Amino acid sequence: MDLVAQLRTVVPAEHVLDDPDVVEGYLQDHAEWAEYGKALAVVRPRGTEEVQAVVRFAGEHRVPVVPRGAGTGLSGGANAIEGCIVLSFEAMDQVLEINPAERLAVVQPGVVNDDLRAACAAQDLWYPPDPASAPWSTIGGNVATNAGGLCCVKYGVTRDYVLALEVVTGRGEVVRLGRRTAKGVAGYDLCGLMVGSEGTLGIITEITVRLRPKRPVERTIAGYFDSVVAAGEAVSAVSASGVIPSALELVDKRCLEAVDAWKNMGLSTEANVVLLGRVDTPGQAGEDEARTVLRCFEEAGATWAALSSDEQEAEALFDARRLAYPALERLGPVLTEDVCVPKALVPEMLARIEKTAAAHDTLIANIAHAGDGNLHPLLITPIGDEDAKRRAQAAFEDIIADAIELGGTVTGEHGVGLLKRGGLRREVSPAVLDLHHAVKTALDPLGILNPGKVFTTTA
Amino acid sequence: MDLVAQLRTVVPAEHVLDDPDVVEGYLQDHAEWAEYGKALAVVRPRGTEEVQAVVRFAGEHRVPVVPRGAGTGLSGGANAIEGCIVLSFEAMDQVLEINPAERLAVVQPGVVNDDLRAACAAQDLWYPPDPASAPWSTIGGNVATNAGGLCCVKYGVTRDYVLALEVVTGRGEVVRLGRRTAKGVAGYDLCGLMVGSEGTLGIITEITVRLRPKRPVERTIAGYFDSVVAAGEAVSAVSASGVIPSALELVDKRCLEAVDAWKNMGLSTEANVVLLGRVDTPGQAGEDEARTVLRCFEEAGATWAALSSDEQEAEALFDARRLAYPALERLGPVLTEDVCVPKALVPEMLARIEKTAAAHDTLIANIAHAGDGNLHPLLITPIGDEDAKRRAQAAFEDIIADAIELGGTVTGEHGVGLLKRGGLRREVSPAVLDLHHAVKTALDPLGILNPGKVFTTTA
Repeated sequence: MDLVAQLRTVVPAEHVLDDPDVVEGYLQDHAEWAEYGKALAVVRPRGTEEVQAVVRFAGEHRVPVVPRGAGTGLSGGANAIEGCIVLSFEAMDQVLEINPAERLAVVQPGVVNDDLRAACAAQDLWYPPDPASAPWSTIGGNVATNAGGLCCVKYGVTRDYVLALEVVTGRGEVVRLGRRTAKGVAGYDLCGLMVGSEGTLGIITEITVRLRPKRPVERTIAGYFDSVVAAGEAVSAVSASGVIPSALELVDKRCLEAVDAWKNMGLSTEANVVLLGRVDTPGQAGEDEARTVLRCFEEAGATWAALSSDEQEAEALFDARRLAYPALERLGPVLTEDVCVPKALVPEMLARIEKTAAAHDTLIANIAHAGDGNLHPLLITPIGDEDAKRRAQAAFEDIIADAIELGGTVTGEHGVGLLKRGGLRREVSPAVLDLHHAVKTALDPLGILNPGKVFTTTA
Repeated sequence: MDLVAQLRTVVPAEHVLDDPDVVEGYLQDHAEWAEYGKALAVVRPRGTEEVQAVVRFAGEHRVPVVPRGAGTGLSGGANAIEGCIVLSFEAMDQVLEINPAERLAVVQPGVVNDDLRAACAAQDLWYPPDPASAPWSTIGGNVATNAGGLCCVKYGVTRDYVLALEVVTGRGEVVRLGRRTAKGVAGYDLCGLMVGSEGTLGIITEITVRLRPKRPVERTIAGYFDSVVAAGEAVSAVSASGVIPSALELVDKRCLEAVDAWKNMGLSTEANVVLLGRVDTPGQAGEDEARTVLRCFEEAGATWAALSSDEQEAEALFDARRLAYPALERLGPVLTEDVCVPKALVPEMLARIEKTAAAHDTLIANIAHAGDGNLHPLLITPIGDEDAKRRAQAAFEDIIADAIELGGTVTGEHGVGLLKRGGLRREVSPAVLDLHHAVKTALDPLGILNPGKVFTTTA
């Protein structure tokens, strides 16, 4: 009996897909340039026991297991490995509990981020982590990558909201990590360790997240700047002002032009760079904060800046920010960078990116969670232009090197996956990599969980 | 050459103390009933390289190493193990950097919490974690136990503020974990794993913490209640109201009486239980929040409740809360419990503690970070009364069992140390304990770091 036939004896046969045309759709995420292999099969489990059965099967047969949410990742973390089983969580998509008294929710990993947020909002509760992929990406994927988002400059990232996890370890055991209480220090923070481990330490089967009360109303401050460097200086000024904005996003002219070319919003004629700030402190204090942000914009040399009194106008600007990525994709494959630098060095890093673009004759657009120092230079290469791709790859390496030189990190929120494996090795010391290997071996002694990703090697 | 003499060859001889009278002062923390052994010596390192030298020496000679901050712990985590080297960080007490632009500080582990807070305040910055031990406890100890405090109901615990650590691992290597940027997902969260690991995974030699802007002004709401259960219901009501208080503390009559007996503040004649709430949202929104908390107190049956317009009066009430522990210690040895339960079950847990006190004829006073569900029943036994001690030990076990039964944890913020080892085994599954052992072995293969604590065994 071949492996797939055997697999169909340990989980319901109809949950195992091996039609090559169907499997093809599960082999990669949205990371440009990242390699992927052919999967043995895709399993769409309906519950924890099926996940456990697959992991045990994989252990017995030494088959790699690759967990997958919606496949919206940007580092190749969910890409198939030759001969692997892809575990796709699309059928484990239930919100199991929303508890207003404890302000927590319990979900299956396949729940889409926006769906959880909507379910919470219906009860006047708020799940803050808001990656730009929120309409499609799943909570399981968000947890696996420790996803960030727009509001995390004030409200933190996914890890800050994960209270507890049910996980199938590489040993094939089901464990519950973390807790439902507000605090707790009984034992090591293995729950937090799982968050951001990109499927290499355990397969997440249930997630308990902390919620906040209903989201407060936001005020928007928009600023137009002549240069990314001037905009970067405005960002540093906001950070130094003591105001913690609930969003501080940067969009450059190349993004605006692409959005205009697609949606005709008329943005690119007015600005080289747009900064979008938001504050959500209620009442007069919020009004004061908004004016402080406005003053930071103006003093950094904004050509135009205003408090938006019109929520629709503000939303249109944020829509342009959200549309930047798909708009740029119309120009060719987009490689999304994800470096994060100290906040005060945002202007310097943006200036270096401009120099890199010129040095390698590469089209680089910029969007950024600027308030966090988390920059997303977008490298665009025309389809089929191999020379442009080589130049872009050189630019990619330079950006990573610059971020490390400035005391930053090679990945702020997308994860290491495949694309940042080299960057990770440059960022951390050999002794720290040794600790990673030791922890990996401790939790996945057979090396079957997403091998070849992050820092691990394929067997 | 004996071991101490050899030790004096690897670190400056004057940093090694072995005078028994001096060493005696380093053998235990503030945990009642917790056993401790005789140390081989105390080393007071002046820098990372001395810590590394001690850990390497300990590895070669298979001598346990027990790291120690101020010794204010309440679980025995810093208690000496027979034949160990105590590493006391009192001489590594420098604030190395306060960086307003990045809103971070870098400190040595021996810096006292209040000293860091004062240094930050001088630059209009704020380090929130505020354990009641803040005037004495060190940041190193706070990190080792993932200490909580009064404001963590709104601002989170120590782990939420630790950006990066320098650590000497059990392998004797110096590693830097974490980062200085606001976000980062390059590799596993080994920095977070170290936080709360109680000295069993690595010895912390430098700490980078996240800061917040200057602390906002707080409003205080005080309420007097006839019963702990009524006060518990007020706590649940606040939690359900959507207001996140910046403190929500409970102090019961036994504490008030002890404080009165000592300081004559006249509190215990007025209330059986005092709830102290604070909110720090600025402006009218904060005023509205304070009124909501007040209404929650009143609707839960407060016999008296008021917004304090007088900051001195409010401080006096919080002083009484802080004085409760030393005031009770005047009555006899105090064992501090530290259970944490789901917020909605605070009234139920408080009722069970009352029953336990009666059933075992044990004096139990209550202080609580009530807004977190983190309760500190204080078990007081008259000095030398062995029967009272046996009854109190039975009460202690019942409280742990009740907390677990209610879906809570055996330790909210003090750590497992020695006292909660049995509780940890009851709280987590054998598979989770196996993961703990695997991680411990991965990072401390020789088992020299604080053996016998949390879940580990002495060699």
